[in-house]
Amino acid sequence: MQKNKLREMWRAGTPTINAWSSIGNPFVAEIMAAQGYDSLTVDLQHGALDYTDLLPIFQATKASGATLMARVPWLDPSAIMKAMDAGAMGIICPMINNRQEAEEFVSYMRYPPHGQRSFGPTRAVFAQENYGVAANDEVLAIAMIETKEGAENLAEITSTPGLDGIYVGPADLTLGTQQGRLPPGLDRQEPEMIEIIQNIAKECQKNSIGACIHCGTPEYAAQAISWGYNLTTVAGDVRLLAAAASDSISVFHDLTSRVDAPDQTEAGY
Amino acid sequence: MQKNKLREMWRAGTPTINAWSSIGNPFVAEIMAAQGYDSLTVDLQHGALDYTDLLPIFQATKASGATLMARVPWLDPSAIMKAMDAGAMGIICPMINNRQEAEEFVSYMRYPPHGQRSFGPTRAVFAQENYGVAANDEVLAIAMIETKEGAENLAEITSTPGLDGIYVGPADLTLGTQQGRLPPGLDRQEPEMIEIIQNIAKECQKNSIGACIHCGTPEYAAQAISWGYNLTTVAGDVRLLAAAASDSISVFHDLTSRVDAPDQTEAGY
Amino acid sequence: MQKNKLREMWRAGTPTINAWSSIGNPFVAEIMAAQGYDSLTVDLQHGALDYTDLLPIFQATKASGATLMARVPWLDPSAIMKAMDAGAMGIICPMINNRQEAEEFVSYMRYPPHGQRSFGPTRAVFAQENYGVAANDEVLAIAMIETKEGAENLAEITSTPGLDGIYVGPADLTLGTQQGRLPPGLDRQEPEMIEIIQNIAKECQKNSIGACIHCGTPEYAAQAISWGYNLTTVAGDVRLLAAAASDSISVFHDLTSRVDAPDQTEAGY
Amino acid sequence: MQKNKLREMWRAGTPTINAWSSIGNPFVAEIMAAQGYDSLTVDLQHGALDYTDLLPIFQATKASGATLMARVPWLDPSAIMKAMDAGAMGIICPMINNRQEAEEFVSYMRYPPHGQRSFGPTRAVFAQENYGVAANDEVLAIAMIETKEGAENLAEITSTPGLDGIYVGPADLTLGTQQGRLPPGLDRQEPEMIEIIQNIAKECQKNSIGACIHCGTPEYAAQAISWGYNLTTVAGDVRLLAAAASDSISVFHDLTSRVDAPDQTEAGY
Amino acid sequence: MQKNKLREMWRAGTPTINAWSSIGNPFVAEIMAAQGYDSLTVDLQHGALDYTDLLPIFQATKASGATLMARVPWLDPSAIMKAMDAGAMGIICPMINNRQEAEEFVSYMRYPPHGQRSFGPTRAVFAQENYGVAANDEVLAIAMIETKEGAENLAEITSTPGLDGIYVGPADLTLGTQQGRLPPGLDRQEPEMIEIIQNIAKECQKNSIGACIHCGTPEYAAQAISWGYNLTTVAGDVRLLAAAASDSISVFHDLTSRVDAPDQTEAGY
Amino acid sequence: MQKNKLREMWRAGTPTINAWSSIGNPFVAEIMAAQGYDSLTVDLQHGALDYTDLLPIFQATKASGATLMARVPWLDPSAIMKAMDAGAMGIICPMINNRQEAEEFVSYMRYPPHGQRSFGPTRAVFAQENYGVAANDEVLAIAMIETKEGAENLAEITSTPGLDGIYVGPADLTLGTQQGRLPPGLDRQEPEMIEIIQNIAKECQKNSIGACIHCGTPEYAAQAISWGYNLTTVAGDVRLLAAAASDSISVFHDLTSRVDAPDQTEAGY
Repeated sequence: MQKNKLREMWRAGTPTINAWSSIGNPFVAEIMAAQGYDSLTVDLQHGALDYTDLLPIFQATKASGATLMARVPWLDPSAIMKAMDAGAMGIICPMINNRQEAEEFVSYMRYPPHGQRSFGPTRAVFAQENYGVAANDEVLAIAMIETKEGAENLAEITSTPGLDGIYVGPADLTLGTQQGRLPPGLDRQEPEMIEIIQNIAKECQKNSIGACIHCGTPEYAAQAISWGYNLTTVAGDVRLLAAAASDSISVFHDLTSRVDAPDQTEAGY
Repeated sequence: MQKNKLREMWRAGTPTINAWSSIGNPFVAEIMAAQGYDSLTVDLQHGALDYTDLLPIFQATKASGATLMARVPWLDPSAIMKAMDAGAMGIICPMINNRQEAEEFVSYMRYPPHGQRSFGPTRAVFAQENYGVAANDEVLAIAMIETKEGAENLAEITSTPGLDGIYVGPADLTLGTQQGRLPPGLDRQEPEMIEIIQNIAKECQKNSIGACIHCGTPEYAAQAISWGYNLTTVAGDVRLLAAAASDSISVFHDLTSRVDAPDQTEAGY
Repeated sequence: MQKNKLREMWRAGTPTINAWSSIGNPFVAEIMAAQGYDSLTVDLQHGALDYTDLLPIFQATKASGATLMARVPWLDPSAIMKAMDAGAMGIICPMINNRQEAEEFVSYMRYPPHGQRSFGPTRAVFAQENYGVAANDEVLAIAMIETKEGAENLAEITSTPGLDGIYVGPADLTLGTQQGRLPPGLDRQEPEMIEIIQNIAKECQKNSIGACIHCGTPEYAAQAISWGYNLTTVAGDVRLLAAAASDSISVFHDLTSRVDAPDQTEAGY
Repeated sequence: MQKNKLREMWRAGTPTINAWSSIGNPFVAEIMAAQGYDSLTVDLQHGALDYTDLLPIFQATKASGATLMARVPWLDPSAIMKAMDAGAMGIICPMINNRQEAEEFVSYMRYPPHGQRSFGPTRAVFAQENYGVAANDEVLAIAMIETKEGAENLAEITSTPGLDGIYVGPADLTLGTQQGRLPPGLDRQEPEMIEIIQNIAKECQKNSIGACIHCGTPEYAAQAISWGYNLTTVAGDVRLLAAAASDSISVFHDLTSRVDAPDQTEAGY
Repeated sequence: MQKNKLREMWRAGTPTINAWSSIGNPFVAEIMAAQGYDSLTVDLQHGALDYTDLLPIFQATKASGATLMARVPWLDPSAIMKAMDAGAMGIICPMINNRQEAEEFVSYMRYPPHGQRSFGPTRAVFAQENYGVAANDEVLAIAMIETKEGAENLAEITSTPGLDGIYVGPADLTLGTQQGRLPPGLDRQEPEMIEIIQNIAKECQKNSIGACIHCGTPEYAAQAISWGYNLTTVAGDVRLLAAAASDSISVFHDLTSRVDAPDQTEAGY
Repeated sequence: MQKNKLREMWRAGTPTINAWSSIGNPFVAEIMAAQGYDSLTVDLQHGALDYTDLLPIFQATKASGATLMARVPWLDPSAIMKAMDAGAMGIICPMINNRQEAEEFVSYMRYPPHGQRSFGPTRAVFAQENYGVAANDEVLAIAMIETKEGAENLAEITSTPGLDGIYVGPADLTLGTQQGRLPPGLDRQEPEMIEIIQNIAKECQKNSIGACIHCGTPEYAAQAISWGYNLTTVAGDVRLLAAAASDSISVFHDLTSRVDAPDQTEAGY
């Protein structure tokens, strides 16, 4: 089996940028993957898609060379194993609150005796040559810390054997740790949130696991890299498309409001 | 039946901006339509989609209030009528070369005695209250002039009774009229192409029909409006998404190449 | 190959009732087919569906025993042959205007030397045991007469060798023959329309081919049978569902407006 | 965010009627929603559909103004949150047996600090303007009481803080409380069942939450309204379609058996 | 309701062969079912498919007469009940480790008072005439024993009231019982594995339940039958197709390497 | 743009083997492509699929390196251009009867001034780096000769400028040239058919274009190579799967009929 490119880049200290796929459409994902992302994550949790969309997205992006991952909706063995059988080389699992949940998560990702993953990589063998039990060493188990409880158990979670990284979702992390005092959103500027976010990176470095974070802008992402993050997501397909369309309409309206269009009110249409 | 909003805006001399839907996905179209376009055209010709995608896109964008249209793949009664039965309030037909083809096109869009459209607006009655033979007055028949022959027959085509507009596809128009001397592409700057493009607008105004053009940037679109165009498309979903993703990666790489990321080569991942 | 049940019933003089499938959903078609129709026609012309929906509908209704047919969108060899390769045992072709079009239609439905159908019944062999060139004798070629020209050429069309029936679409027939003087619609009551409709049945009987008609109610259908029609469609899935839902809402509103519901305005919801 | 129309109607004491969507097809749902229902519930539990069908149904029915809801298959955070991220303004959760399950259910539906819903309303922001944490106040959490245990814990369940209603499924309620003594089915007439059903309405009124029930006929629904129910479902898309089709076939057969059809046994077909 | 054919064959002592459907495509399943399998199992666990594919596969294979089953991804009431509502007459549940899990599994498959299945066979009533509570007697509950713990609790599991069979997945069973000492794979030849496999058959016979096993070749399957197995799967759609394609390429290469093809290097292509 | 691998192999005199994709499923195509075919052709004519399936199949097989082609249903500019915009590097067009049709076909495949293809390679630019007007040189235009008229015009057709190959469909060729005297089928053994088939290869060699043929077995394919054919299809996905499944069932039945299975008639199941 091929080495996981994303892990290799993390080991080499190369900052990585991840595509976020929330639109359940293979062509959208193919367009995204063609732009040069290091990895692409299909969001089965909040994305407008489910397993039915995952497999064709993996097929459409296979040739791009990006490391393909999935965020599952919940700590659920069926969702995790099905995503890997479809070819996911990494799983981001939301709402990990404590060591026990982290261990459970990790166990679902590895074949016995290292875990309880069931054997049947039906499509994965077409995604990766020689896919087999060696997948144990290549798939990335990435937990999300985003609740009050999770934040309090940061050290216990990050030190879980077999865990490969932490992914930070700033919206939930803010709602969870601040209990509604601050509104959800990306690219947090509040000192108390920055402290938590920086702390997670430190804890990851201590345990030699990847620190990953969801950002809204490349500027914030670069800052996160300077804090020790290894992977950043910069917006996602929905936000990128909406903003680009909205911007072009604004510029059009702005420019045409100053244009002296020919008077057509007499036209007969 | 409701009046066609796009025609009303043309009559009022308001410049309009059209969303171009080449990705066959209803959520993509819903995102686009939510940004405030005046109309949305689903591209059955070059888009990565066909009829199967058209109907759900019309459903997903119905609430947006944009005038929904389809570009059909060819002068084909079946494609034209099916798109209207699905709810299209306008049809853009490519490759119209002469008066006879223009008349044929127009005849497919209207019920007898004004044409030969077959009656059966199965989904259209759910798209528009009181949809019926009155659709004859509301649907927009828009022909593309994009071949050498078409350009030579400009006056004959634009004066076809029942035709409501001309849509300019600059890539084909350039390939067709210049016979390979100039490469295809949008936003033409060559004087000979600008002359042709301006001429089409003039001929449309003479016949009181809408002049429409496919552009790559809002700047060119605004210029087209100043030439008398009534509707401009500014890029499409594929290009908007690809450019936005590509830009964010570039900025990320640019910024992180200057970041002093913590040395992780010793990490054990 | 099995005999075409619908033809057998026509030969036996048994009135038949046909299900009309305009919703592109196999479960809808399975529900319809389970109610006891003699045949089921998938409407590729005005239905909210295309080929992609046709094949799963044929799979879902195969066990019902109904004769499965398709109405194609236009006199188009590709649409006709693909529908038959998918398993259609009959094709209804709209807008047949004259003898030449009728002969063309019939030729697309039969293998050489009796026609020009191309050989490749990829799924049909799973729909019918021993499917092969014997299909020439089993598939039903049914032309629609619905334009002014078609009505004028009634005798020439109905006597086309290899034609198996005529299907009447009253909405188009009215628009076409009356040129807009009468509104479209089913279950025509006007003497001039009844005369045309009765005449078609007579011409079919003269040529020993099936007379088929689209009706809105079983009452009109029974009347058509008394005029010599062999097959009637009574409404379709869209109309049946919409009317049933609308009726139940009306009754509910009617009954509850008289109910003395407990006063809940003080409730705290 | 817009107020939840269904809750407003309950507050106003207006009887409401809910469409039940068991066929996983957006056009079917669009047809249903166009008939004037106050709400539409997509049945992810027993319906012939799953998440993949839910989102396009929500898109196709958005313009109708009906309050859109989903019945999830089980007390499962992933199913509940995904349905809301897709735009559901209410969730019906089956098989709630006790207070603890009711509290768990309610917690999945609200963002912290009022619950544990994860933030990411990817499509909901396109379904409702200004969708955000204010959704906590608008989404309806409706529990099903349908097991022996659930019926015994009626008071504890209905008084759960944050619960907005109870939905009665008479088939399961009968199987569950009578343990097989009575067959499953809607529109129960047995005194012991009517007592349970009336009791649920009373308990709902006591706690100022909505009482909802699944009925087979508008007549029973009106009766339920008179017992204090706020929302009734009257059959669903499957049953409405099947009954309408079956009825029209029966009438056809009945009428044509009396018709004196022309003798065609000599025809040559 | 019709008797479950598979159970009848087991009772009659007839060896049965099961089709394994891992490709989520109804036409693939229709092709498979047409070859004469006694049953067909759709693999929702490791197959490249989910619920969305299950229902159309059941529709496409209904006419074949094979007993239709599903392997669910996990011991999950929602997956089990949805598969049965779609028409599954048997459920294979993976990873059953002990008596409690076996009892839970069985309870999800039967209506009260024999279990906790929720009533709503929306599509099942179109798959089986008179589908109702009698389904309790017809559906087959088949547990997989494939972990160390499961193997140790063999006797307790096989004697669970209401359990109808055991399905052996040799890959997981090997990984689980040998804890990585042996590689995963079918058609085990190791004496220790054969002993376990034979033992399972014996335990099944003792409890009068069906013994089922996944094989790679008909030769191994026949051997399993001789050990007392009642049902064998011989490869699945993926493996059958891949091997057949690969073989034909090999033979082609082998034969053409010896062919003296005309020299075409001078050709101008 | 990359060179067309298939054309390169023909130039090098290497016999090539083509996968035939009649099942409209990307995973099936991915499995096929992984076996080592030189090219893969998606059959839009007789395959159980249409455009909607074509694009995902091209995505799923892109990484395989096989040259991807489509057989279109008919000489139809829309079908031909859409398949190429989706990424097809070759088009097989059925039923080419004479020089005029061949010229028309070729004209649809090339951008002006070499033809009339419309510019808009929406997905093709993601399939091939630097896709543009250079596609004129890379796409393969392959005509089918399969009718009486086509066979008579062999020389005129094969010498059409811009034509890149001839594809022989033996079933139609037999029906067409023998007018029903011989049954349809592959791998013709009749001297008169072999003569026609050999003659086509000779005519192709004379014009330096590729000779391609549809075969049922690798043995016949090897023979065709010896006659000068450059490309052979050996069966297709439907036939390969059906035969493999059928064979394994036969062997199972054969072996188990001789097995002495334990008597289970006393079992209590």
